[in-house]
Amino acid sequence: MRSKILALVLASLSFAAHSQDIKKLVDDYLNLNGVQVLNRYRALLAIPNVASDLPNITKNADYIKSRFEAAGVEMKLLTLPDTPPIVYGYIPAEGATKTIAFYVHYDGQPVDKSQWSNDPWQATYYSEAMFNGGEVIDFPRVAQDIKPDHRIYARSASDDKAPIISLLTALDVMKVNGLAATSNIVFFFEGEEEAGSAKLRQYLQENRSLIDPIDVWLFCDGPTHQSRKPQLVFGVRGVTGMEVTVYGASRPLHSGHYGNWAPVPGQMLAQLVASMKDAEGNVLIEGFYDDVEPLKRSEKKALGAVPAIDEQLKQELAVADPEGTEPYSERLLLPSLTIRGLSSGNTGALARNVVPATATVSIGLRLVKGVDPEKQKDLVEAHIKKQGYHIVREVPDIETRRQYPKIALITRGGGYPAARTSMDTPIAKSIINRAKTVAGEDLVLLPTLGGSLPLYLFTDMLDKPAIIVPIANYDNNQHAADENIRIGNLWYGIKLMTALMTME
Amino acid sequence: MRSKILALVLASLSFAAHSQDIKKLVDDYLNLNGVQVLNRYRALLAIPNVASDLPNITKNADYIKSRFEAAGVEMKLLTLPDTPPIVYGYIPAEGATKTIAFYVHYDGQPVDKSQWSNDPWQATYYSEAMFNGGEVIDFPRVAQDIKPDHRIYARSASDDKAPIISLLTALDVMKVNGLAATSNIVFFFEGEEEAGSAKLRQYLQENRSLIDPIDVWLFCDGPTHQSRKPQLVFGVRGVTGMEVTVYGASRPLHSGHYGNWAPVPGQMLAQLVASMKDAEGNVLIEGFYDDVEPLKRSEKKALGAVPAIDEQLKQELAVADPEGTEPYSERLLLPSLTIRGLSSGNTGALARNVVPATATVSIGLRLVKGVDPEKQKDLVEAHIKKQGYHIVREVPDIETRRQYPKIALITRGGGYPAARTSMDTPIAKSIINRAKTVAGEDLVLLPTLGGSLPLYLFTDMLDKPAIIVPIANYDNNQHAADENIRIGNLWYGIKLMTALMTME
Repeated sequence: MRSKILALVLASLSFAAHSQDIKKLVDDYLNLNGVQVLNRYRALLAIPNVASDLPNITKNADYIKSRFEAAGVEMKLLTLPDTPPIVYGYIPAEGATKTIAFYVHYDGQPVDKSQWSNDPWQATYYSEAMFNGGEVIDFPRVAQDIKPDHRIYARSASDDKAPIISLLTALDVMKVNGLAATSNIVFFFEGEEEAGSAKLRQYLQENRSLIDPIDVWLFCDGPTHQSRKPQLVFGVRGVTGMEVTVYGASRPLHSGHYGNWAPVPGQMLAQLVASMKDAEGNVLIEGFYDDVEPLKRSEKKALGAVPAIDEQLKQELAVADPEGTEPYSERLLLPSLTIRGLSSGNTGALARNVVPATATVSIGLRLVKGVDPEKQKDLVEAHIKKQGYHIVREVPDIETRRQYPKIALITRGGGYPAARTSMDTPIAKSIINRAKTVAGEDLVLLPTLGGSLPLYLFTDMLDKPAIIVPIANYDNNQHAADENIRIGNLWYGIKLMTALMTME
Repeated sequence: MRSKILALVLASLSFAAHSQDIKKLVDDYLNLNGVQVLNRYRALLAIPNVASDLPNITKNADYIKSRFEAAGVEMKLLTLPDTPPIVYGYIPAEGATKTIAFYVHYDGQPVDKSQWSNDPWQATYYSEAMFNGGEVIDFPRVAQDIKPDHRIYARSASDDKAPIISLLTALDVMKVNGLAATSNIVFFFEGEEEAGSAKLRQYLQENRSLIDPIDVWLFCDGPTHQSRKPQLVFGVRGVTGMEVTVYGASRPLHSGHYGNWAPVPGQMLAQLVASMKDAEGNVLIEGFYDDVEPLKRSEKKALGAVPAIDEQLKQELAVADPEGTEPYSERLLLPSLTIRGLSSGNTGALARNVVPATATVSIGLRLVKGVDPEKQKDLVEAHIKKQGYHIVREVPDIETRRQYPKIALITRGGGYPAARTSMDTPIAKSIINRAKTVAGEDLVLLPTLGGSLPLYLFTDMLDKPAIIVPIANYDNNQHAADENIRIGNLWYGIKLMTALMTME
């Protein structure tokens, strides 16, 4: 009974938090507590979070659990052996008619420290983006010194610890303003998304009692629109990849004594890679585009309203001639093939006069709705075979090498298919409308993100809608060195999370 | 007067050393002194000899000078600031009509110790070649335990300290047998050949009084024929190279958000490299073969007598289908283009889902007689330009990158042209005949080596004949880890040097 009264009181209080107020409440809060938010974030970013580094990834999980517990949330770790745990949290809302889950991943991409301007595990504060000439400055000591264009550089500053600090801060905003959650809230923080989410399916299947009540999944990941407008995204591309090594002689050979006679793996690989795409960037592999599922009417309409950013991107990224002839937003609706890496012998100071024995290419594949990851890799393999290659699964022995002029060792990567959620359901419409209260009317609605998340597990396996709710600036160097978050985006994230947890 | 009598006595003694005797004299000597020869060689190999390591390279020079002085040779160091010295020696021969110079280099390639089976600066003795299952054994303590298939593993064991110990031992053989040099002998030992012989030209020019009297240069370097037959070589290919970097967007991009739109440098580079050669390995760059100077009749005849080793090489090196359609020995008479290195992003465990910002290829070029190194690089550049590339010499700025869809940063390497000496001159014929006395009648006469040496300085700048007199086994892992010399080849080297210093 008592809790019912409390719920009514909270409900009446929360009623006060209508549309236009959330932005102001958060701004007021940050004017008082912005410095503490940044410092709390520094502490979170200082825990290295590569999924394969189990001791540190577990530290992240424990730390996040304790912070949310301190904010009053019921927390637990869902575990599987030798796997980063899921940090799970639950906020019940009296009289709620729906349950909203916030998915975030707390692991990050591996780092190559030599490529970073600063220690990736020590957050560094910049006056603005490095590429704009930003300089290292001290973390602000008073909230008034914090500017929207300031940036924090650190691994996972944007991808994907930013939504975690946003949610945590949103809870604090709600607490100091006496706002309660209006839906049941689930926090579902994954620890090996960047490593391929190998156990996500199992986690979902083994915790059905926690998972089944969820009506909609909000995926807090990915960047906002390149026009710098906020966006909601209703789908993702799928992702997979493969590595191909081709072979020359059985050992590196002196390029004088054997150059012109020895097969040159770098040359062979160049010819193989060149055969995969035409000069415009269209993939020439047979069947590569065959299974692409066409857009619905609402999706086409939304796509038509997406701000054109092609010229802006060309300027910013110094791209004189992009691949393909379609606009950027349409290119993302096609499966892609990109060369993630090439290696053979050495370049630069280490280059020597040898003909290397092997050359390797790492191929990235992005998939769209309708395209199966395994079939897509089959098509690439069939293409390689058609170029005259004998395909092997293990390093070929000397006899195999003597026998076949062209040998390709293919290692198929894991991955998952694309996913797309309808924009037309009532719950999708509610979320769109609530997001607009902090994002404004020109909120971009994107049928699909170019990037990938294992959304298919939710849309296809669990059969629930899944909407991506990104907060990071698009120029955050996600996955690369010098990853960063723009403070203005972090502040937007806090507003958005507060709004979504308190939506009518 | 006294020295004239001595010379006559020596001449009459040396007359005893006719053809068939040299082999026996050396064999007899080694049956008594083989162990000492190996031990002396160990001491020489223990001094690290990377040209850039000036203190150690100077130790090598001092040590070699002192050993040759001990053998009775007038020695001196020719020096230039901050450069390894030339170890120069001279043996006057009374009544001699010609002066023969023995060129050797005492520096070696840098080592990557992690790639070696043993310490590269500690000679290790093997029962036979590692690749044949040879095992580490103690250095023999009695000469009868030394077998021709034994090998010494150490940096420069073959390339190029082997001729130094051979010459030193040959002097001792001559001394104990009372043989005198029949030509004036010059020793000219270079200390930065593997680093590019940057000062060799200057050394030759600044020491004209020592250099001008030389009638023929014998280059003691490189391997014997792959058929394991001894050989003399009358030319070398020239060498040069270049590095080409192509550009995508101004920074690495997320392959999801930009894959299909961002230019992919690895793809562009593959297309560029693929355009340089056809599927058979023939270079498609316009004019690449235009300046090749045709072979003379004697060279063609010699080439016809070179043992075919194609099948043997294909087996040994596990090459099912070599480049080109001509036999191996003819392929070396063409200029070559090989991919020494490729790099873009990462492959293997470090591969990430990014579209890298650049891709780089290191191109090795080998040149033959008639082909100019600078012009050859010009042709490659012209080809790159023809593929639509805007060529730059420094990392392009953002404006340049915005303007040009295809940009290639080209760094041209140094290098030098090919050289070829006639087989038809009297002095060439004398040397061929003398070498046959220890090498046998099936001595291979090769118009050109596939590898490179700065022979053009001698043939073109000094206008003197230059003949390569190799002794090392061809499978010596030259320039790579686990470099080695086969004992049988070292013993052959001693015989050959003794024969050449005492030729009629």
